Amino acid sequence: MRENPADEVAANAMLLERGGFVYKTMAGVYDYLPLGYRVLERITAIIREEMNAIGGQELLLSALQPKERWEKTGRWKTFADMYRFKDNSGREMGLAPTHEDAIAEIALRSIRSWRDLPLAVYQIQTKFRDEPRAKSGLIRGREFLMKDLYSFHRDENDLEKFYAVADQAYRRIYKRCDVPVYMTEASGGTFTKSLSHEYQVFSPAGEDWTIYCTKCGFAQNQEISTHKGGDACPRCGSTLDAGRSIEVGNIFKLGTKFSEAVGLSYTDETGVAHPVVMGCYGIGAGRLLATIAETHADSAGLVWPEAVAPFRAHIVALGSRDGAEERNIFSAAEKLYARLTRNKISALFDDRPDKSAGEKFADSDLVGIPTRVVISPKTMKKNSIEVKRRNQKEARIMTVKELISELRQIS
Amino acid sequence: MRENPADEVAANAMLLERGGFVYKTMAGVYDYLPLGYRVLERITAIIREEMNAIGGQELLLSALQPKERWEKTGRWKTFADMYRFKDNSGREMGLAPTHEDAIAEIALRSIRSWRDLPLAVYQIQTKFRDEPRAKSGLIRGREFLMKDLYSFHRDENDLEKFYAVADQAYRRIYKRCDVPVYMTEASGGTFTKSLSHEYQVFSPAGEDWTIYCTKCGFAQNQEISTHKGGDACPRCGSTLDAGRSIEVGNIFKLGTKFSEAVGLSYTDETGVAHPVVMGCYGIGAGRLLATIAETHADSAGLVWPEAVAPFRAHIVALGSRDGAEERNIFSAAEKLYARLTRNKISALFDDRPDKSAGEKFADSDLVGIPTRVVISPKTMKKNSIEVKRRNQKEARIMTVKELISELRQIS
Repeated sequence: MRENPADEVAANAMLLERGGFVYKTMAGVYDYLPLGYRVLERITAIIREEMNAIGGQELLLSALQPKERWEKTGRWKTFADMYRFKDNSGREMGLAPTHEDAIAEIALRSIRSWRDLPLAVYQIQTKFRDEPRAKSGLIRGREFLMKDLYSFHRDENDLEKFYAVADQAYRRIYKRCDVPVYMTEASGGTFTKSLSHEYQVFSPAGEDWTIYCTKCGFAQNQEISTHKGGDACPRCGSTLDAGRSIEVGNIFKLGTKFSEAVGLSYTDETGVAHPVVMGCYGIGAGRLLATIAETHADSAGLVWPEAVAPFRAHIVALGSRDGAEERNIFSAAEKLYARLTRNKISALFDDRPDKSAGEKFADSDLVGIPTRVVISPKTMKKNSIEVKRRNQKEARIMTVKELISELRQIS
Repeated sequence: MRENPADEVAANAMLLERGGFVYKTMAGVYDYLPLGYRVLERITAIIREEMNAIGGQELLLSALQPKERWEKTGRWKTFADMYRFKDNSGREMGLAPTHEDAIAEIALRSIRSWRDLPLAVYQIQTKFRDEPRAKSGLIRGREFLMKDLYSFHRDENDLEKFYAVADQAYRRIYKRCDVPVYMTEASGGTFTKSLSHEYQVFSPAGEDWTIYCTKCGFAQNQEISTHKGGDACPRCGSTLDAGRSIEVGNIFKLGTKFSEAVGLSYTDETGVAHPVVMGCYGIGAGRLLATIAETHADSAGLVWPEAVAPFRAHIVALGSRDGAEERNIFSAAEKLYARLTRNKISALFDDRPDKSAGEKFADSDLVGIPTRVVISPKTMKKNSIEVKRRNQKEARIMTVKELISELRQIS
């Protein structure tokens, strides 16, 4: 799209819609088009790798939830944003906004003894929340893809250990996605009476305010903080800052709230029964994508980090396909495409014959693929290509071999 | 679970639940546990490969659907099984039982000219249908993972060509999953006035009846057939059979029904506008998993085909971990596990110290991993292992090296 969509105020949604990454079906409900799905796939692949690395086993739980299950944990009434309805037979059900209630019940079947613990399972699954305000683009969705990990332990001490391991995995995920985070103390909401931790990214698009210390890393969500920007840091004495931020993840020590509600216990080595201690760990995959878009953009468009870019190279062939010289250019571009693909470097090929060089360059900047490769009459004569990194100003002339060697070093 | 679940009548659900593949949350609503998710992942990987091979581009559409979209195509009222409800603000919406209505609207943004055609997009996404009868286990789900491909063409002729290409891709998918299918003529339902094609697998668990010819492959869904078992085949004159069958896929020539409803047209080389011609192509991934379970089982449990098995080898270490000899056995089993993993042969290791050999063998048969490897005092002495294929009666004694070489040849 040439223009920003009229009904969006969030930069992430404007750029992602204009660039053909997403389609807006309703406020807070977005479809991932092929370009956007490729980014989402790369983000979920990173998340999967890190969850598997800490022993998480993947599963997939249902969105449809029976009322009875949520009544057991007391959240049928307290979880305000749950979509609730009756089916054709009159049975009341809801769409899962999260899965603590479900996983605690399901774990009843597999956790009996201390030998079954610890256990960590996760899913990358679509959640639904009837959000009253959904104007931050993909940052606050009514339907959104989320990674949720649940851990089960014999005691608080074992939970603490895993909580620290999960924290490290989260930091690796954000680092790989090039999103700098502050681990922030926050309220436990309907999940736990104790505090939770959020991962906050500073951005004007954020819906949260974080009070933080750049020196020691202390950070609290303003909602629970007794401090404000300008105060002395309670941990190191330095001056606190305050800033708008996006919550890109949260982790909770659930304790025994859900296990006691459903009767989830284990017997220890001496045959004594104890309630299972639980933790939960969430990352919105779509929100992370939107946050990367918010924090990796300039006036011309998106600037994807290499690790999550939909393609690594954007091949732009200039001119129509009509003249003999132009046929040569398109044929050279096709060869380049095949050669990059053989070298496992994904490439998008702009072969539109009816667009000017200016339009193609503007679209390439908007889409934000890290490396742009231009094939034109000028470069063809020198048997070379023009390479420009999206995050650099100057283009460079090089051979295809040099490009491949350079891209291999980046990956 | 030792016993079949009391509330199931379908063999697929009984075996999948007992074996720890799925958990039943409600009738027609199943959760995939880690073991089941691994099978689902292998099935969706096969589907993705074949869809990408015919030029399908993956995307991901929303489940939440605005009423207005479905009113345009006339299906808000006619699609009986759609879950419909109001959100907190009173807005009417539904959960997508399929996505023709959505994709036709979304395609308005990207299809303008003949140059944009043909186009094929697909997703592997969770659908919802308020099924009045959901007693066939995972075969008829209220919530189910489905692959749906949509194709866009300039004319019927181009659709016909792609329809044949998609048919070949479907046959490859079923063949790789070891499910023999009949391509069967069927009604077009709310999708099209012309006939559709279903892929039917013969099984007593099926909800359909298919009239078919084993000689020439002619097949019709009984609902539309003017023939019956015993009649002469209208194509080759041979005798027709009739059998209960499971529909594991369906393909439709939609024509211009949806494109005309939303105004989706393209301009040809001379500037004349035409409605886009569409096709759609569905495979229920969960239903395919259940069909494989139905058709690959014996009295002892599941017998997964190599291509979709959750693991390729099931290592069973006998005895408790207590004695010195048994510690040796467990240590040998752990070494075997590491060696198989290094050789990219996935393995499940039954290291439960509190189960008898009989229980472990019964569980191994139930879970149905293609190759069982037993490490016991008997084999340890000979520095070898006992290998039994799930679909063979006899166990064989061999070295680990021989096992690895054999499994490499199978894959």
